[in-house]
Amino acid sequence: MVTKEQIGEEYKKLQDEICSGLELTDGKAKFEEELWTREGGGGGRTRIIQNGNVFEKGGVNFSAVEGKLPEAIKKAFGVNESDFFATGVSIVIHPSHPWVPIIHMNIRYFEMTSRDANTIRWFGGGIDLTPHYIVKEDAEFFHKTLKDTCDLFSQEFYPKFKTWADDYFYIRHRHETRGIGGIFYDRLDPVNTGLSWEKLFGFSKAVGRTFLPVYSELVERNRNKEFTAEQKQWQYQRRSRYVEFNLVYDAGTKFGLETNGRVESILMSLPPQADWVYNYHPEPGTEEAKTQALLKKGIDWI
Amino acid sequence: MVTKEQIGEEYKKLQDEICSGLELTDGKAKFEEELWTREGGGGGRTRIIQNGNVFEKGGVNFSAVEGKLPEAIKKAFGVNESDFFATGVSIVIHPSHPWVPIIHMNIRYFEMTSRDANTIRWFGGGIDLTPHYIVKEDAEFFHKTLKDTCDLFSQEFYPKFKTWADDYFYIRHRHETRGIGGIFYDRLDPVNTGLSWEKLFGFSKAVGRTFLPVYSELVERNRNKEFTAEQKQWQYQRRSRYVEFNLVYDAGTKFGLETNGRVESILMSLPPQADWVYNYHPEPGTEEAKTQALLKKGIDWI
Repeated sequence: MVTKEQIGEEYKKLQDEICSGLELTDGKAKFEEELWTREGGGGGRTRIIQNGNVFEKGGVNFSAVEGKLPEAIKKAFGVNESDFFATGVSIVIHPSHPWVPIIHMNIRYFEMTSRDANTIRWFGGGIDLTPHYIVKEDAEFFHKTLKDTCDLFSQEFYPKFKTWADDYFYIRHRHETRGIGGIFYDRLDPVNTGLSWEKLFGFSKAVGRTFLPVYSELVERNRNKEFTAEQKQWQYQRRSRYVEFNLVYDAGTKFGLETNGRVESILMSLPPQADWVYNYHPEPGTEEAKTQALLKKGIDWI
Repeated sequence: MVTKEQIGEEYKKLQDEICSGLELTDGKAKFEEELWTREGGGGGRTRIIQNGNVFEKGGVNFSAVEGKLPEAIKKAFGVNESDFFATGVSIVIHPSHPWVPIIHMNIRYFEMTSRDANTIRWFGGGIDLTPHYIVKEDAEFFHKTLKDTCDLFSQEFYPKFKTWADDYFYIRHRHETRGIGGIFYDRLDPVNTGLSWEKLFGFSKAVGRTFLPVYSELVERNRNKEFTAEQKQWQYQRRSRYVEFNLVYDAGTKFGLETNGRVESILMSLPPQADWVYNYHPEPGTEEAKTQALLKKGIDWI
């Protein structure tokens, strides 16, 4: 039986691996760590990388919190007084180069034990990519890699979790997706997947270990491309949509802000600079217009 | 009896006056107008000023919409099938100069008539100021002017509406106010104010007519001050808090996005550029630290 301690330990190891790998890729910037504890129980390791060769601002955060279930979640789940434990690794990277994509990853495990001793547990997570400029070969590579990881565990995972990501990472008021999506999943357990807890833990780790090779490859493919001041400006405008998604729709961000989480760790996902230009529409036929046209659900990138 | 047509007409006139006045103050930029209509009924005049001598990005919007009450509001008000009418003027101005404050104003009138012929009507609105650097004399002048306007109608208005603004323009997750507040009020009617509809309409107009002289004065006091690159950077960081407030808490923004309003008109309130710096704390004793320390509720600026 997989224990919460094992999961937390494994997630910590993963955070270490990813931070080391990203530092190597960047070649200049180092992560700075902030340790924090939560009043009700548990804490985390926030690690931020800034002003690197490639990474302008990014965070690779680990947390493992526990205690009494906050009011807000009790209501959402319709449960009474319960103890909970939640651990996860969360990543958002904003590169300085407009041709290098923004990436986000989260893997998490949650359990709660209510008074009548029922324990509810699940895994959740996802990876999604937000290129400022969509390169179709990169999009194909990204989705193909995620599919390969999913297929090791279930043939049903990729199609299901790809659609879930399309629906989740959607900026409703703009009628556009945040980027090219990826995978998103939540509340996985043996009943709804047919997989054991060990297998599900294996899947969670596999998603986590997909991050570094897939993103390193995408960085290498694009980091030496030439770019113009206009492309940099477009990048700032795309980042403003990232801000809109995270502040208006992202469940993790909302939950963190509502439950009085550590603000700087939650909002590390926001970009170093974002621009809003009134009523901007890219000229037809430009790279910007091509990217804009691809920000929609249901595209089969593979 | 004041009619909704009269109120709409008066608000339109006010929009014209304010736009002319701001163009004079700026001396360079002109408003550009976008007329839009709403599918369910009504429409508006969005007017945007950009890249001026003083005003980097701002909007002075008028709208008058009507039709069947959207689902979201029906639930919020606990009413059945109703016709509604809503009109208002909304302003947000982001100046380029870090010593010139951001300002926001809104005046609005709402009515709804349900099947059983009950009509519910009210006025709402407010003005609040968000200086990147708080100048105490300016804060005093700003609040004093608002108080004078309020006092013409009721001695109770300023103290009540000032507290209301402190509570409303509050960034909960940052434990800080958006700026130095101002006044905020909602659902004013003869029963809860003791004033006739004519008087309440008079108050709404008076708030609207306070905007131009008070903001012009604040612009003139500060537009010729010298400033540094560091102060410009601080301005970008303060603007990111403005984004956080508007996307996470502002009721008008949320409502607009949820009811599929015209996105570019709703989000004209967002700044041209905003920066997020991880875990930034101003050095003790600096101007930035002094401003930060004043971002709290309950300060008597007069």
